[in-house]
Amino acid sequence: MTEPLLIVDARLPDGTRVDVSIVNGRIDAIGPDLQVENDVAREHGHGALLLPGFVEGHTHLDKTMWGMRWYRNEVGPKLTDRIENERRFRAQSGHDAAAASLALARAFLQAGTTRLRTHVDIDTDAGLKHLEGVLKTRDALRDVLDMQTVAFPQSGMLKRQGTVTLLDKALRGGADVLGALDPALIDGDPVASLNATFDLATRHQKPIDIHLHEPAEIGAFTLKLLLDRVEALGMQGRVVISHAFCLGALAPRERDPLLERLALLDVALLTTAPASVPVPPLAACIEKGVTLFGGNDGIRDTWNPFGSPDMLERAMLIGMRYDLRRDDALAIAFDCVSHTAARGCGFADYGLHAGARADLVLVDAETLAHAVAARPVRKLVVANGRIVARDGVLAEGV
Amino acid sequence: MTEPLLIVDARLPDGTRVDVSIVNGRIDAIGPDLQVENDVAREHGHGALLLPGFVEGHTHLDKTMWGMRWYRNEVGPKLTDRIENERRFRAQSGHDAAAASLALARAFLQAGTTRLRTHVDIDTDAGLKHLEGVLKTRDALRDVLDMQTVAFPQSGMLKRQGTVTLLDKALRGGADVLGALDPALIDGDPVASLNATFDLATRHQKPIDIHLHEPAEIGAFTLKLLLDRVEALGMQGRVVISHAFCLGALAPRERDPLLERLALLDVALLTTAPASVPVPPLAACIEKGVTLFGGNDGIRDTWNPFGSPDMLERAMLIGMRYDLRRDDALAIAFDCVSHTAARGCGFADYGLHAGARADLVLVDAETLAHAVAARPVRKLVVANGRIVARDGVLAEGV
Ligand SMILES: [Zn+2]
Ligand SMILES: [Zn+2]
Repeated sequence: MTEPLLIVDARLPDGTRVDVSIVNGRIDAIGPDLQVENDVAREHGHGALLLPGFVEGHTHLDKTMWGMRWYRNEVGPKLTDRIENERRFRAQSGHDAAAASLALARAFLQAGTTRLRTHVDIDTDAGLKHLEGVLKTRDALRDVLDMQTVAFPQSGMLKRQGTVTLLDKALRGGADVLGALDPALIDGDPVASLNATFDLATRHQKPIDIHLHEPAEIGAFTLKLLLDRVEALGMQGRVVISHAFCLGALAPRERDPLLERLALLDVALLTTAPASVPVPPLAACIEKGVTLFGGNDGIRDTWNPFGSPDMLERAMLIGMRYDLRRDDALAIAFDCVSHTAARGCGFADYGLHAGARADLVLVDAETLAHAVAARPVRKLVVANGRIVARDGVLAEGV
Repeated sequence: MTEPLLIVDARLPDGTRVDVSIVNGRIDAIGPDLQVENDVAREHGHGALLLPGFVEGHTHLDKTMWGMRWYRNEVGPKLTDRIENERRFRAQSGHDAAAASLALARAFLQAGTTRLRTHVDIDTDAGLKHLEGVLKTRDALRDVLDMQTVAFPQSGMLKRQGTVTLLDKALRGGADVLGALDPALIDGDPVASLNATFDLATRHQKPIDIHLHEPAEIGAFTLKLLLDRVEALGMQGRVVISHAFCLGALAPRERDPLLERLALLDVALLTTAPASVPVPPLAACIEKGVTLFGGNDGIRDTWNPFGSPDMLERAMLIGMRYDLRRDDALAIAFDCVSHTAARGCGFADYGLHAGARADLVLVDAETLAHAVAARPVRKLVVANGRIVARDGVLAEGV
C-alpha cells in the first residue's frame, strides 16, 4: 500500500496542463487543478511532459552482463554459433541469472520502464536455474515492476531430449508465457515442434511468444502452420510472434494475406527494429490492423554488445528503422514501447487515465517526438504509485 | 600557443598504460612513465581508455535547431518536399546559421569531436548567408575545432540560375570543398551537372564531396560518369561520395567493378549507416580497399528529428547497421568515426602518435567495443592541446 501522491502541473502530449492524483497505486484522477487533502505528498512537475511508464515487450534479463566486466565477443556469425557459445560460457563462468537480471531490471526502472516481458532460457544443461534467478528478481521488485516471464527453449525444444519436460515444469513453477524458437530451422520439424508447443500451452492455459527468425519463404511456411493452430485451438489474442523477419522480405502479394490473418486471429508481432535485417512492415501492419510493438531483445550479452534499458532509445531506433520523421509518425514509435506493447503483452490497467496503475514518467521535452529523438533524463519515475527514480537516479530502497 | 600538459596513466585500446606529453598543441611523446619538468600541468587519467579525438565526416551545422525550440515536422515524404520545406522555413523563420552552427559545434566538442566536415547550403534565396554564419563559428572555435566547410547546392546547381556563380564566390570566400547533389535526379542532367562541378573544382583546385542519393541503377550510372571525370582530370584522392545508396542495392557482379574503380582512383565513401535504406557494403569495401567512413548528416533539423553530436553514438549505429557484434568488428566501426574519417576528409596530423595534433578523449570503458556500445560520458576532451571539456561539460571560455 503506497501513500497518496499528487503530481502538480504536468503536461500531456497534447499540451494540456494537468495534475495527477494517485491513491493506492492507482491514478485516482487526472485533470487540471485537482483538489486533494492538504497532507497529501506533492511533486511539482514544472510543466514537464507526462508519459505513461514504458513497456519493454521483449528482453532477456537472464542473459545480460549489464554492470559487469565487458564481455569480449569473439563469436562466430551463425545463430547456432551464438547459442552454443552462450551455453558454454554460462556453464564455465557461473553466470548468475538472479544478480544479472536484478541489475538490469533496476536499470529499466530507473529509465522509466514499469512493465516488462522477459524470455528466460530453459535448457537441459541449466534446467530451471535461470528461471529461478529471474523469479527472484521478479519477487524482489514485485511492488514496482510488473514482469512477465517467458519459458524459452533457447537451445531448441525437440533437439535436446528432456526440454519439453523442463518447459512443463517451468510453466507449473511460475512462468507466465510459453516461449518457442524457429520450429523449422532450429528444431528441424516445424509440424512436430509447433504441435508440442501448442499442446503445452493449451494444457497449461498459457499464452505463447515465439522467436521466429526464419527468413522469407520458410518463415512464411512456419507462420501459416502456426496460424492454423491458433485458429483451430482458439488461441486468438494469446500469441505473439517475435521478430517475424519473414514479413519484411515477402512481396505484398504474399505478405498481405498473412497480415490479414494475423489481424483476424489477433496475433501480435514484436520487433526490435533491427537495422541489418528485414522487419515487419509498420505501415502495412497499421493499415491491416496488426498489433506491432517494440522491445530490445538481449542487452549487452554474449549475443549482442548493444542495447540499453531505455525504451525511448528503442523508440528512436524504431523511428530510424521505419524512417519516421514527422511528429505524428514518431508518436507511433512511442506507442510501440508504451500503449501498443501493453496491449501486445496483455498488461492490464495501463495508461494515463483514472483507474489505471499509476506508472508515470516525467521528462523535459516539448512533444512525444522530442522525447523520442532526445531521450532526456527521466526527471521522475512513478511505478505502481511509488517514486522509484528522480533525475535519472534510482530512489533509495529500490 | 597552449601550455604544456601531461596526461598521466591513460590506457590504450590494446591495454598498454601510457602517459601523454603535450607541447604546443602537439603530442610530444606517448609512452609509459614519461619524465617532464615539474611545473608542467598534469591530468590524471586513472587508467581511463584513451581515444583520438573523434571526426565528424559529414554534417550540416547550418541547418540544425540543436538547443532551440522543438521543430514540429509535418513535411512530405519526398526529397524535394524536404528541400522546398526547408528553404521556405528558413526564409520565414529568420534561422540564424551562425548561432545554430555555434551551438552544435560546441556540443560536438563537448562530446569529443575535434575535427568536422560540414556541408553548408548555398542557394539563390539565401546566397552565401549560411556560409558566412558557419565561417563565423569556424573562426570562433579556430583554436580547438578543425573544421572543413563544403559549399553545398542543396536546391540543385543547374536548376536554379545563379547557383554556379554563388558556388564560385563561396570557394573564393573561404569554403574548403565543393559540394554537389544528385546530378541526374535533382539537376536532371547528369553530364552537364558533373561537368559544371568538376569545372568549378578544378578551377579553384578544391576537392569535391557530392551527395549521391540516387538509387541502384541510376546511381551506378551517375557514379560511372563521376569516376570518368576523376580519372580524366587527375582528381584522385580528392573526391568523396556521400551516401552512395546505390552501392548497397546492386548485385556484386555490378557493384564490385565500381568498388575496384573507387579504390583505384582513391575516391572515398561516406555513410551515416541509415537503417531504412541500402548502404555501401562495409565488408566488400574493406576487401577492395575502398575508404568508407562515417558521419551524422543533419542533426535535429527540418529534415530529420534524429541525431546527436556524439560520434560514439554514430559508431554504434554503424555497428548496428552492419551487424558488427565482435570486438574486432566494433573497432572498425570506431575507425569509421576516427582514423578512417580523418583519412577520407584529409585531416592532417591525426592520431595518437608523437607529432600529431593533440586531440584526445578519455572515457571509462574497457575496450573500443565497450566505448561504442556504452557511449560513456567523456571524462576529458583535449583539442589542439587544450582541455575543452571535462565530465561531459564544456570548459569555461569554449
Ligand atoms: Zn529474444
Ligand atoms: Zn548531407
